[in-house]
Amino acid sequence: MTTHPLVGGPVTVGLDIGGTKVHGLVLDAEGVVLHALRLPTVRGRAGVVSGAADVVRKLAAAAGLTVADLAGVGVGVPGVVDPATGEVRHAVNLGIQGAVPLGRLLSAELDGLPVRVDNDLNVAALGAEHALGPDGHDLAYLALGTGVAAGLVLDGRPRRGARGGAGEIGHIPLVPDGLPCPCGQRGCLERYASGAALDAAWPTVSGRPAPAELFDAAASGDPRAVEIRDEFARAVAAAVQILVLTCDVDRVVLGGGVSELGAPLLEVVVRALDEVAASSPFLASAGLGDRVRLTPSGVAVAAIGAALLGRGERA
Amino acid sequence: MTTHPLVGGPVTVGLDIGGTKVHGLVLDAEGVVLHALRLPTVRGRAGVVSGAADVVRKLAAAAGLTVADLAGVGVGVPGVVDPATGEVRHAVNLGIQGAVPLGRLLSAELDGLPVRVDNDLNVAALGAEHALGPDGHDLAYLALGTGVAAGLVLDGRPRRGARGGAGEIGHIPLVPDGLPCPCGQRGCLERYASGAALDAAWPTVSGRPAPAELFDAAASGDPRAVEIRDEFARAVAAAVQILVLTCDVDRVVLGGGVSELGAPLLEVVVRALDEVAASSPFLASAGLGDRVRLTPSGVAVAAIGAALLGRGERA
Repeated sequence: MTTHPLVGGPVTVGLDIGGTKVHGLVLDAEGVVLHALRLPTVRGRAGVVSGAADVVRKLAAAAGLTVADLAGVGVGVPGVVDPATGEVRHAVNLGIQGAVPLGRLLSAELDGLPVRVDNDLNVAALGAEHALGPDGHDLAYLALGTGVAAGLVLDGRPRRGARGGAGEIGHIPLVPDGLPCPCGQRGCLERYASGAALDAAWPTVSGRPAPAELFDAAASGDPRAVEIRDEFARAVAAAVQILVLTCDVDRVVLGGGVSELGAPLLEVVVRALDEVAASSPFLASAGLGDRVRLTPSGVAVAAIGAALLGRGERA
Repeated sequence: MTTHPLVGGPVTVGLDIGGTKVHGLVLDAEGVVLHALRLPTVRGRAGVVSGAADVVRKLAAAAGLTVADLAGVGVGVPGVVDPATGEVRHAVNLGIQGAVPLGRLLSAELDGLPVRVDNDLNVAALGAEHALGPDGHDLAYLALGTGVAAGLVLDGRPRRGARGGAGEIGHIPLVPDGLPCPCGQRGCLERYASGAALDAAWPTVSGRPAPAELFDAAASGDPRAVEIRDEFARAVAAAVQILVLTCDVDRVVLGGGVSELGAPLLEVVVRALDEVAASSPFLASAGLGDRVRLTPSGVAVAAIGAALLGRGERA
């Protein structure tokens, strides 16, 4: 084995294991991404473990390292995770039924390398904190995807919750007797503020993602598109209001698939927040609109947060 | 001065300064209340300071101590507080306009004794944590009074928020286009879940507090009282749901004036939570009803929390 200038520093691998893709990267001690790759997810208990180990080995090799040179691996998965043990439950998107000791199994595949596992939104919040820089020690990462949920970093510490369920704001009712939700309630926030809500409200004709097609149609003046877009923006604004009034997070970072819209998303959400603030001095003083940020473009916040988790410095 | 077995231990005074009464107590190192008293609040900047100093002196004397024997004083006030400096703003219920450096002024009145100041709900949450015992390190203290707001202790640490505004859930809209709120919005949670909401919905004829009269009438089968009581319970249940789904607090402790109802309040709130859980496996798994507690009867949680704050151990 050749010596390497990075050996000894906390070089880690971060894995964001999603339902279709694993996004992995190597992060150096200064927080610089040395190498990144994206591979299809191998579903099921054995597949997730061996697939993840394979990505770690490929990344180490690409960075000119061996697995033994790494300080650790961090993993974000969509499911209920016990970060103390690395056990994952209910990761249905990964084809995993019941509980899997992912941290222990992956560590065994990697010759005992420390492996830390957390929920994907918690690691995304850590990655967003890193991406926002010195002022980003207190934030909610608001994922607008198939569903709506948030990862929280409060006073610089991940807030996972007493039972691992912090940030599940998608199932706070927004509309009394509103649209039925698979959770069993009606009118849940995520029926109005998610990518799935836009897919349902705006069936695409171009083959592009519904959010992009909808926002373009609205920008072109299509009155129906404007109405759907603005109702969506008000629902996202309600999510921001819930997060800020409950937790008083300093920043709310818009993430998830819908955030690929970029600036036009930020614009309509801030406008919706400014509209409610215009009639409420209380909300105006809370400065909701000023707190909202987009996930920085091209930054894989979940994989970066996973790599930061892999350093073992964050409780 | 006589020597005293308590001198040297962290004996502190806690003050809960409200709009009409100051509740003060002396707390010993084991968390036992040595002496307590309640005096009318002297309003205005000078009055609040000299009145608080007067209560501290009276409490120390009653416990056989001098002020110099105390390890510190903690103060909870209704207003926006900077705990780092002890500066209080917008404490309109205390007749204080603008900003007052309450910590510094009270310390000067008490010959330099350390004085720590925080929002009344934050100290109530600390006191509730203490009252609930070893399992109480993670909770929301949900104050149902004139308004509705919560104090939070997350992972054993007070969560004040990035701008001192955590727990302001009373101004999350519950009913679209609902009752107007002084905050400028419509349908705010606190228009339905507060003591003021019950006062408005059930004008008393007996002179007793509206919540007590209403709950008695409902227990006697008055259909209008049952309807108002159950609508109120559903609104409180919504507050619990918001707190748990956002922060995943292990416990929600019902406090504030309405909580003097005791067991009948807990019963209707848990029933309302169980009703929503019955139609939602997701909510059922969150165990909302199991998390709700009453403030222990006869325990002055805010004053106790203030005395704990006065120890200077809690960041």
